[in-house]
Amino acid sequence: MKSFKPIWTMLIAALLLAAACTDTKAKKSSENKGAINKSSAAEKVYVAPGEYDEFYAFMSGGFSGQVSVYGLPSGRLLKVVPVFSVDGEKGYGFNEETKPLLETSHGFIPWDDAHHPELSQTNGKPDGKYLFINGNNTPRVARIDLSTFETAEIIELPNAGGNHSSPFTTENSEYVVAGTRFSVPIPQTDMSIADYKGKFKGSLSFISVDPEHGHMDVDFQVLMPGFDYDLAHGGKGKSHGWMFFTTYNTEESHTLKEVNASQNDKDYIAAINWKKAKEYIEQGKYKEMDSEYLINRYDEKKHLAESITRKKVRVLDPTECPGVVYFLPTPKSPHGVDVDPTGSYIIGNGKLNANLTVHSFDKMIQAIENKSFADEAYGIPVLNFEDVVAGTVESGGLGPLHTEFDGEGNAYTTFFISSEVVKWKLGTWEVLDRVPTYYSVGHLMIPGGDSKEPWGKYMVALNKITKDRYLPTGPELAHSAQLYDISGDKMELILDFPTIGEPHYAQAIAADIVMNRSKKIYPLEENEHPHVTKSEADARVEKNGNEVHVYMTTIRSHFAPDNIEGIEVGDKVYFHVTNLEQDWDVPHGFSVLGAQNAELLIMPGQTETLLWEPLKPGVFPFYCTDFCSALHQEMQGYLRVSAKGNAPAILASTGD
Amino acid sequence: MKSFKPIWTMLIAALLLAAACTDTKAKKSSENKGAINKSSAAEKVYVAPGEYDEFYAFMSGGFSGQVSVYGLPSGRLLKVVPVFSVDGEKGYGFNEETKPLLETSHGFIPWDDAHHPELSQTNGKPDGKYLFINGNNTPRVARIDLSTFETAEIIELPNAGGNHSSPFTTENSEYVVAGTRFSVPIPQTDMSIADYKGKFKGSLSFISVDPEHGHMDVDFQVLMPGFDYDLAHGGKGKSHGWMFFTTYNTEESHTLKEVNASQNDKDYIAAINWKKAKEYIEQGKYKEMDSEYLINRYDEKKHLAESITRKKVRVLDPTECPGVVYFLPTPKSPHGVDVDPTGSYIIGNGKLNANLTVHSFDKMIQAIENKSFADEAYGIPVLNFEDVVAGTVESGGLGPLHTEFDGEGNAYTTFFISSEVVKWKLGTWEVLDRVPTYYSVGHLMIPGGDSKEPWGKYMVALNKITKDRYLPTGPELAHSAQLYDISGDKMELILDFPTIGEPHYAQAIAADIVMNRSKKIYPLEENEHPHVTKSEADARVEKNGNEVHVYMTTIRSHFAPDNIEGIEVGDKVYFHVTNLEQDWDVPHGFSVLGAQNAELLIMPGQTETLLWEPLKPGVFPFYCTDFCSALHQEMQGYLRVSAKGNAPAILASTGD
Repeated sequence: MKSFKPIWTMLIAALLLAAACTDTKAKKSSENKGAINKSSAAEKVYVAPGEYDEFYAFMSGGFSGQVSVYGLPSGRLLKVVPVFSVDGEKGYGFNEETKPLLETSHGFIPWDDAHHPELSQTNGKPDGKYLFINGNNTPRVARIDLSTFETAEIIELPNAGGNHSSPFTTENSEYVVAGTRFSVPIPQTDMSIADYKGKFKGSLSFISVDPEHGHMDVDFQVLMPGFDYDLAHGGKGKSHGWMFFTTYNTEESHTLKEVNASQNDKDYIAAINWKKAKEYIEQGKYKEMDSEYLINRYDEKKHLAESITRKKVRVLDPTECPGVVYFLPTPKSPHGVDVDPTGSYIIGNGKLNANLTVHSFDKMIQAIENKSFADEAYGIPVLNFEDVVAGTVESGGLGPLHTEFDGEGNAYTTFFISSEVVKWKLGTWEVLDRVPTYYSVGHLMIPGGDSKEPWGKYMVALNKITKDRYLPTGPELAHSAQLYDISGDKMELILDFPTIGEPHYAQAIAADIVMNRSKKIYPLEENEHPHVTKSEADARVEKNGNEVHVYMTTIRSHFAPDNIEGIEVGDKVYFHVTNLEQDWDVPHGFSVLGAQNAELLIMPGQTETLLWEPLKPGVFPFYCTDFCSALHQEMQGYLRVSAKGNAPAILASTGD
Repeated sequence: MKSFKPIWTMLIAALLLAAACTDTKAKKSSENKGAINKSSAAEKVYVAPGEYDEFYAFMSGGFSGQVSVYGLPSGRLLKVVPVFSVDGEKGYGFNEETKPLLETSHGFIPWDDAHHPELSQTNGKPDGKYLFINGNNTPRVARIDLSTFETAEIIELPNAGGNHSSPFTTENSEYVVAGTRFSVPIPQTDMSIADYKGKFKGSLSFISVDPEHGHMDVDFQVLMPGFDYDLAHGGKGKSHGWMFFTTYNTEESHTLKEVNASQNDKDYIAAINWKKAKEYIEQGKYKEMDSEYLINRYDEKKHLAESITRKKVRVLDPTECPGVVYFLPTPKSPHGVDVDPTGSYIIGNGKLNANLTVHSFDKMIQAIENKSFADEAYGIPVLNFEDVVAGTVESGGLGPLHTEFDGEGNAYTTFFISSEVVKWKLGTWEVLDRVPTYYSVGHLMIPGGDSKEPWGKYMVALNKITKDRYLPTGPELAHSAQLYDISGDKMELILDFPTIGEPHYAQAIAADIVMNRSKKIYPLEENEHPHVTKSEADARVEKNGNEVHVYMTTIRSHFAPDNIEGIEVGDKVYFHVTNLEQDWDVPHGFSVLGAQNAELLIMPGQTETLLWEPLKPGVFPFYCTDFCSALHQEMQGYLRVSAKGNAPAILASTGD
């Protein structure tokens, strides 16, 4: 096989050259900015014992597949919410209740790559109801309920190869979107990879969100040319009704993309008029494709997830639906696409560019009305760059990726290669400030920073390279976030904090909005689990053939029953454990020795089920895994397993 | 089934009554201690961006099964080390290389409950070589190599029901120990649970640690009466050669233990003379029991784990080996047993007691020499309480659990029920200070605090109840740690920080000891993985029947090969991916769309293997999951899957 030199060094050399030609005055202002006022920074980030952080920050775990919740400004990790990956700590994906959440049309998937947390919005503002997040590998979108901080739903996306430009929302969470990252044959079929160009396709999914329950479904898909769809953002205010997606690999190359997908001077931002698309759907102008996908919903009263199978999806072909899709030429391999709080500007961050391209929504509408098209691509109109561009930010940076806003008319853009954040002014495109990041920042996040009304105050840089920033932990290092105070004219670095997985993107919300909706327990009287046991008097063991159901209760500090006999090798034992506690923060855990499974971690009022298939005769202890009281160590019982055909009568007792 | 009222309230009432009878003067001194000097505390815990923490703190994940590494005093989470539980983020337990680490004699176990991190010691001081940790559920002990922060070995423990009193070390890590938490029939057999008393047994395992490679094996076990063995600590200095274990349930009850195992006024601390035991072993005075167990070792040059099966274990019966085991009566259900830095005092924390019992090592030896025995239990001599007790700390607290030391002659004990830490003086038993904890502290940790030379300076309280300490996250809350400055006469609370899983116990070590041993990359030239690919020229696909081996390389920013054809449904595809990078902190990830597996996360110079069994024909993208460069999004390829019998010739190309 041929060898290739990394083109990394060539790329940097070319970009350095490009940058040398731009104004570097702003750059110089960043000199001597490394100095930190330690005493002032310490006080700014310190949240004293017993006091609360100002913001919840939801960070994607990236390749961990989960969401981690941090407090800001302290940078403390408040919770890891299991979403796409199994988690033995919470029994997520191991207990019978959550297993269905990770089912897909092609089986159980124990992992995913979760990139973009997106808060649900009302009137363009985060409302604290839900957090959506995409599965980038197996195309899926999850919804976390912020009253419980648990995954409430996961929907699979048909006709997609990966799902990166997702799950960005419209102003009232009418839709969250999902765009195929890697184009593939649609429908999937055995085809030569070399036949990619013109034959592979992309799809953009519009997932409806039920306003009452939050339930998701694929309302429709738009079938697109075989580009890679990278990121997206919804219009706001005047541009509400539109969704913008970046593309790369408009070259449609299928090998060595680091070279072959970086050839075109401009790729596209795809502007989708989803209101118009909806009209076409209502008029029946769609094709119904055979496409199987699952919707997995967790029912909070039944305390379990169930899967719904869909067999068909409605697909729009943009060549048959004029007015739905337009392409805005954007230099050069645009990565992030961000819409300012007023909805007037669409900012394309060409990752192989030095400058930023800002498109004008008004100019785009005007050009569309004028039918002033430069070209078409697979039947989709391409607008003239000059007709839609509002301005260029001569950043002096290298490798722009993402932009967020402070609500004061300023934008903040990350530069991966020059490892910095640049603050600039909307409308004048003037660079106001720049700060280094350590190192190689990807996304950034300002609380509410992609909404109509950002809270501002802080900016978090989500860095891709850590190296020497913390005490070393061998070859593998945590990724790292950096917190900046942006309340003044100049950005001020105040804290470094390591993160779980890859903190790919994050969103933050003022704490009180979520706090006020947060549940403390699950009311036992509302528990509708099919195997709930609501009092110790009902605790029992039922055996049907080789299926054993243990109806078990927990309360400080014993199980009922805690002595179980009558089980034999070959039985399938289902422990349905109900936590009778009704106080906040009194979970109980459950595990049986020799189980081939993870524990249960059962919140007050909840029922969870562990399946155990005993392999050998003997007496096996079970115990509470979560330290619950002074007599927690005594919270245990025994289960007797007999050889097949040798079991005594069922015994289920406590304290006898 | 009968109903039981929680006896929790009764227990508290009884203990409050007991406490009312003790001196409460010291208690009053804790009033008005809630006030925190915020400015001073903020500066004490603040580690400015780019600066390093003073200590590595290794916290058990408790029911997460992992170890989390924090920096002190910042409380920042530096890394989660996967140990006993699968971790999709790192592919741990999913890739072919680490799967064997989680194998046991009864199959693959995806989870455990990890309680006590224990640093290896040389001359009674943490040496920064290894961290041991116990699996409390499936009895196991793991060893983490602190040069890589990766799990290097997991050993299974035969003849044990749970493993809580583990893995405490001797002064030079000659042994780490493991005591069965729940007694069981030994060997396991089908037996009525009601026959527990006298028929169930405990075992205490002495695991040898090879001084050169750290390899563990069970040197011998001591067969014990059917009590529950709770915690342990090794002797130091003059008491080197002894190991002390707490017991509870000396009542040998088998049901409703919260009541039935709390009847005896005194349980025992078991003192084991392991040097004497070793002599018996050398003299051949052991029984060889048929007991299968696995030792799973990760080879850092092969980059993979392999399992060794053992079939027999050497067992000592203490009734046949006089001088090996003595029982020290200790009130009341002793939980922690801690040995002071001089090795003179053995502190028993009777969790249903108000006061602490301190035994004297010298007095114990004298009593043994005098053969002054009060009684015997199953043939094991029980010493007279009065003969061995050195003093009693009238703590004024309720529910003492654990004690650590500052090296200045002071001891610090946690009280779960009264939710506080009490500082007292060794020798005079005088209470010097007390501080509240929020809430219900379990273990505490002082850097080096269970060694011969504690670093002191900080104390961390590991709390079991969180409730209102942080922004709420629904019914499930993170557990919580609190950091106190103990450099002055009075303990001062300076930081609250939430933790991963249950921070059951922790140990900390001065940062430089570990930093100086930390590896940055795996040298590619030393890679001995059986499927390594050391250059792109060697990248290829080999097919044998339905087994496909993809020899793949990664370097910024492409895979070789990145176009693969010739695979068909029913094949088992092994992607052996070698990361050719040799720079620090340049991992690459690997995942294939539609895989029923987690990703690979491959460190520089390392090879990892993902098994994929394609289910359907089509073209499936694969990509790098860890953002590695400006062209990371382009780092991907395609794999074509054909129907069975329909595949074209093997194609493995890049850039063609």
